[in-house]
Amino acid sequence: MHTESAAPATRSTVSETNRSRVLHYLYTHGISSRASIAQALGLSAAAITKITARLIDAGIIHEVGGIEGRKNRRSIGLELDPRQFHFIGVKFARSLVEIGVFNLKGETSSLTDLPPVQNDTIPDTICSIHKTINTLLDNDSSIVAIGMAVPGPYLRHEGRTAVVSSMQGWRTFNFLDEFSDAFRVPVFVEQDARAGVLAQYLLDPTSSTCRNLAYYLLGEGIGLGVIDDGRLVNGAQGGAAEIGHVSIDVNGLPCDCGNRGCLERYCSAVAIHRRLSETGIVADSDTMTHKQACHALFEQAAQGDRAAQHLVHEIGRYVGYGCVTIFNTFNPERIVLGDIVAEGGQPLLDAVHEVVDERVIPELNKATTICLSRLPADAAVIGAAAVAVTQFLEHPSRFFAIT
Amino acid sequence: MHTESAAPATRSTVSETNRSRVLHYLYTHGISSRASIAQALGLSAAAITKITARLIDAGIIHEVGGIEGRKNRRSIGLELDPRQFHFIGVKFARSLVEIGVFNLKGETSSLTDLPPVQNDTIPDTICSIHKTINTLLDNDSSIVAIGMAVPGPYLRHEGRTAVVSSMQGWRTFNFLDEFSDAFRVPVFVEQDARAGVLAQYLLDPTSSTCRNLAYYLLGEGIGLGVIDDGRLVNGAQGGAAEIGHVSIDVNGLPCDCGNRGCLERYCSAVAIHRRLSETGIVADSDTMTHKQACHALFEQAAQGDRAAQHLVHEIGRYVGYGCVTIFNTFNPERIVLGDIVAEGGQPLLDAVHEVVDERVIPELNKATTICLSRLPADAAVIGAAAVAVTQFLEHPSRFFAIT
Repeated sequence: MHTESAAPATRSTVSETNRSRVLHYLYTHGISSRASIAQALGLSAAAITKITARLIDAGIIHEVGGIEGRKNRRSIGLELDPRQFHFIGVKFARSLVEIGVFNLKGETSSLTDLPPVQNDTIPDTICSIHKTINTLLDNDSSIVAIGMAVPGPYLRHEGRTAVVSSMQGWRTFNFLDEFSDAFRVPVFVEQDARAGVLAQYLLDPTSSTCRNLAYYLLGEGIGLGVIDDGRLVNGAQGGAAEIGHVSIDVNGLPCDCGNRGCLERYCSAVAIHRRLSETGIVADSDTMTHKQACHALFEQAAQGDRAAQHLVHEIGRYVGYGCVTIFNTFNPERIVLGDIVAEGGQPLLDAVHEVVDERVIPELNKATTICLSRLPADAAVIGAAAVAVTQFLEHPSRFFAIT
Repeated sequence: MHTESAAPATRSTVSETNRSRVLHYLYTHGISSRASIAQALGLSAAAITKITARLIDAGIIHEVGGIEGRKNRRSIGLELDPRQFHFIGVKFARSLVEIGVFNLKGETSSLTDLPPVQNDTIPDTICSIHKTINTLLDNDSSIVAIGMAVPGPYLRHEGRTAVVSSMQGWRTFNFLDEFSDAFRVPVFVEQDARAGVLAQYLLDPTSSTCRNLAYYLLGEGIGLGVIDDGRLVNGAQGGAAEIGHVSIDVNGLPCDCGNRGCLERYCSAVAIHRRLSETGIVADSDTMTHKQACHALFEQAAQGDRAAQHLVHEIGRYVGYGCVTIFNTFNPERIVLGDIVAEGGQPLLDAVHEVVDERVIPELNKATTICLSRLPADAAVIGAAAVAVTQFLEHPSRFFAIT
């Protein structure tokens, strides 16, 4: 469908598109000659000379000594140095705010957890986010953008989240109003699981060749980010892929989104913590954060505690029910599990596979991989940075004066 | 994400893209001058002259007498005559095969139902599809392509359907092998609900401006076709948006896809027919087809039968549970209900709204319209033709010798 047929391509959008294509190529392929870039992108030698000259003048890419060219001739290489630019990623969860600094390849240079957030401490948290980010910006002049990952459904045009289970305070908070113009670099906001899938796509080599990818965020809430045929699925308002509020039992537990039997009532870190309080499987779980309580459960299961193992298996089955729905709604090629609950590891993944093998259409099951996130930090906090990296690669002229 | 950055744009793909953009423009805007097309598409006068000359030579578009141009000057108009080209649409359901002939605007020139299909009559049905299509082609030289809409999950690379509840015979049938080269015109196959959403998008003026659209197919099976930001959501194998196999109760009724509590076990025409057999609400329903039985139920409800009204309300609530899942997975702007069960009309739609108002996140509910299909025939059979129309508009050189 040529739905954009009426939008004229102007000279300046064409230039920016070609600049972006060159940056993407260098980002993916590393040091490359002008000739190889021109050939891969179908651009003339004259065009590539002009585009790269401007990117060099702007300080985004630079020349490196002779590399081996075609026919064994030495040729000058071009590089987009992944360490030259830094990005701040901020992840908001119900009670957790995490702030990290990453380079273009997602390598971490710092990672900080703010103190747990309660409804009545939101103003303090916001204040300390401003302070932390400003300190990072003051100490690192290579930071060029900030990405924020927030719980869904995130209404992207309004700049706020529609529902945050058990954390109503964030509901009235407008991320765009608060942060858009607050710092010396631009700020981009995205739903957390979409940020997560972007991180997998951009930064995990096994996922980056995959055009149909899902990131299944199993944290204080449950979320889903989907890339279909190389493109993020957003929905009209940015509310797509709220798997946490898909019902697995229309007569089940009520959720504060209005629905009943929402998946996140059964296997989110919050739901698991509640189960631990009710059952007493983990001693003193009431004094712990949701994350600590889940860690304690997984630790206890790993040490052979049968009740803990049984609960992990049950949680894994619920995560599996969600997986079955992901198969039947989005038919991805790969589903990556991440965040707090995914730290249940192999025993949890086994229970997920058990359900999937029982319930998924065999042809779809056979063609799909389910795995745990392999990123070095939480996918949503790296993903927040990945949102900013994507903007940098796609719209370089928003970051640098390109003449 | 510039995931296609490495695909070089060749001269011939650029020409075909521009031809397609011109055809889309004429398809959407009707008779237009070369100047207005050039301006809207950002093409030079020389380019538009060349492109349109070739389309005229190939007989796809033609000139019409002077139209009112800019500055009140008379100018020559160009037309893509919607009546000049015909398309066959074939819809396969569990037990129904419908064949229609449509023009570019989806106007029907003929519509035929084949006799109901049973597992053991599939070979006869296939034979009669060949015969019917060949007769249509012999009698109408303006037919340029055939589209087929088949139940999902349709494995598009393999050419077959993975599961057809209660109609296992179609499972082993390969649509591409059987039909690709069988006729004098090309054949295109698509999942039925995706064909349906394409028809809504292309042919219903109220939906064609909508970039996030869902067609909720409530027939012998339950399906979903989604356009997200102007693009069809397919999934890796073509298995996306199988809402009929999304569970609404993980401990519910078993389905032959392997899952439990699949939506289509509760509100498909097949499920409704089963309920009618069990309850006896419609006399002699056992002698009817699924479609006839549903019609009889809706008719009886319209005439005031309380038991029938009660069942229609209950069915509407199940359809509504599916709608809630559509909101939370795809966040469309508009959900169009169609096929056999949608003929329950306003009382059914009222029950859907009742559930949606109870259970959907208010911000999403407020921004979304739910309505019944307004197309003159079943959306999937027109949609089958719409799949072929889309190919015609996007790849004209596959249909005509363009020099």
